[in-house]
Amino acid sequence: MTMTAAPGLEGVTVAETTIGDVRGAEGFFHYRQYSAVELAERRSFEDVWYLMVHGELPSAAQAASFRATTAGLRSLPADVANLLEPLAAVGTPLEVLRSLVSVLGARAGWGPTLDITAEELSAQTLRLGALVPTVVAAAHRLRVGRTPIAPREDLGHAANLLWMVTGTEPTPTAARALEQYLILTVDHGFNASTFAARVITSTGADLASAVGGAVGALSGPLHGGAPSRALEMLDLVPDADAAQRWVRDVVASGGRVMGFGHRVYSTDDPRSVLLRQVAQDLGGPRVAHALGVESAVVRTLAELKPGRELYTNVEFYAGVVMEACGLPRELFTPTFAASRTVGWSAHIREQAASNRLIRPSARYVGPAAPQPVPRP
Amino acid sequence: MTMTAAPGLEGVTVAETTIGDVRGAEGFFHYRQYSAVELAERRSFEDVWYLMVHGELPSAAQAASFRATTAGLRSLPADVANLLEPLAAVGTPLEVLRSLVSVLGARAGWGPTLDITAEELSAQTLRLGALVPTVVAAAHRLRVGRTPIAPREDLGHAANLLWMVTGTEPTPTAARALEQYLILTVDHGFNASTFAARVITSTGADLASAVGGAVGALSGPLHGGAPSRALEMLDLVPDADAAQRWVRDVVASGGRVMGFGHRVYSTDDPRSVLLRQVAQDLGGPRVAHALGVESAVVRTLAELKPGRELYTNVEFYAGVVMEACGLPRELFTPTFAASRTVGWSAHIREQAASNRLIRPSARYVGPAAPQPVPRP
Repeated sequence: MTMTAAPGLEGVTVAETTIGDVRGAEGFFHYRQYSAVELAERRSFEDVWYLMVHGELPSAAQAASFRATTAGLRSLPADVANLLEPLAAVGTPLEVLRSLVSVLGARAGWGPTLDITAEELSAQTLRLGALVPTVVAAAHRLRVGRTPIAPREDLGHAANLLWMVTGTEPTPTAARALEQYLILTVDHGFNASTFAARVITSTGADLASAVGGAVGALSGPLHGGAPSRALEMLDLVPDADAAQRWVRDVVASGGRVMGFGHRVYSTDDPRSVLLRQVAQDLGGPRVAHALGVESAVVRTLAELKPGRELYTNVEFYAGVVMEACGLPRELFTPTFAASRTVGWSAHIREQAASNRLIRPSARYVGPAAPQPVPRP
Repeated sequence: MTMTAAPGLEGVTVAETTIGDVRGAEGFFHYRQYSAVELAERRSFEDVWYLMVHGELPSAAQAASFRATTAGLRSLPADVANLLEPLAAVGTPLEVLRSLVSVLGARAGWGPTLDITAEELSAQTLRLGALVPTVVAAAHRLRVGRTPIAPREDLGHAANLLWMVTGTEPTPTAARALEQYLILTVDHGFNASTFAARVITSTGADLASAVGGAVGALSGPLHGGAPSRALEMLDLVPDADAAQRWVRDVVASGGRVMGFGHRVYSTDDPRSVLLRQVAQDLGGPRVAHALGVESAVVRTLAELKPGRELYTNVEFYAGVVMEACGLPRELFTPTFAASRTVGWSAHIREQAASNRLIRPSARYVGPAAPQPVPRP
């Protein structure tokens, strides 16, 4: 079969999945049949992680056991922890994560997914998922000249992340806000990082290769790099009037308004709807400013680009919520990586279970070939 | 547009490219309009590298200048070199490469391809291409308890790689044999590693993310991991009769015969044709054994799977040639990575130049959704 796909494979179905679905026109997405928004409203991050691993929500006993298991996997081996300092000296927390995922896989001898059992791969994903917050929190602290803080097993995944970053036990409101952000960003269809992870897994490569590649994809500004850029806009504009002027300038110069519009949703992004509410619960002048700017920007975009329906996307309130929880901006994308690692892991396991090398074609459009090769 | 692609995107054209073309039915492939086999017969690796960068073969003066430039980029910064020892203590040379590509990008502050000029990206790719042999040779030597050997600027790319691995200046025959292997493996369509590099680049991520992901994909046994497995078969069978029995056993048990058959070529793989000749030029009892085994395996496969036309693929003689050049098996895939880095770089530059996020779709085939989320 030969066919030509749309640029960027937009709208091209490349696989079947049981992990979840994004229904852009409905403003709805789910993980394994449960609305992601409802999961964020009603369950813990660990319950959703369990759902992604086992395909069903845990009983109370299963939830407690899973929580204890994953909490027990949060500490880095000493020799890997020793690498944090030289790596953090030359890189951002996301770059340190990209490097350390590779080192962790090598050190643990994870080996090709092609050569291991589904149970072994599943165990590896739990270990990796538990370690990501530890790595990024320590990398950040070293970078700002502070000592890394050891993980605490008595805290939930989100609360422990805040603890390791700030050294202060977070308020229940802040911990729950971050937890809801994490749940909302576990998975979202075949985005570029998830697809990269699946392409890499399709060669039979190990978990570290797939997640390392996914972290790399997430570092791209067109994918995971936007939350801090949306906040930079909030810094730039003092009020709603200034926001309107700013949007007009950006649109007139052909630029992108970060934090608004999504390739998949033609409605309000369901993640931003809940995160707006979470931000309002957190409160404060910064959140009030964000709400004012958002409505000015949406109004102005509707006027400048009628029919385009450019709503706030997940990045906008993701940044606002993470900031209000006490996370520094350089940890926004690494925190996104912490939740998405759970989603990538589910996709890697699904890809590995029914493996087939992903190898598309390209059309050569260069000068006519072959030309004889001249000898030098 | 909505369409459903073949599993693994087989036969699906996902992009236009000016970098090269693989014509499987003709047993022919080219880089920028020149037959790759003719390039390997007539030119140096650096000339082909120049071709991939500039789109045309160099004049004598351009070739000399390019050779001097790339040779001058072979040394690792001291702080990165210091990381080699702890990384080599816990990983294979390919895993060390995967980690160090990430570290190099972070240290150099390469930054998103979205935010830099084509010239900056091109300079970064030269630096990375020059460093890969240094990293993998040093990682191997440390792993076997020896001291890394500094690169020599007076040697060509292939000869210097052998020098850094063995500490002995290679014979011209061995250096040329490896050089021809490297030229033949620079690029080969949208294989999984190249596609992974393009998917990652499509997010605007940096060169290190894209090449790190590609190295990860190459580590998969279904992609870059086969040359040493083909050699293991040569170890296993003492003669042609034993090879026939071995193939019958593998086929009867439903296994894969590594080193034979290719998804793209229905003819003899043009790379294996030239590499067979290169191996014969190198000579020796091991090469004679390989030739005997190859013909026994091809004959037996033709009998067991009539009509399938399973010929020797590039992995088989790649392993034989690399072994005859004095490379240890754990450096086979890293050496493949050394040449393919040049091809990946061309694809990354092409993707970055006309960027569009690669984001396909999947079809959800799990239980009906949405189900209400029970509270715990």
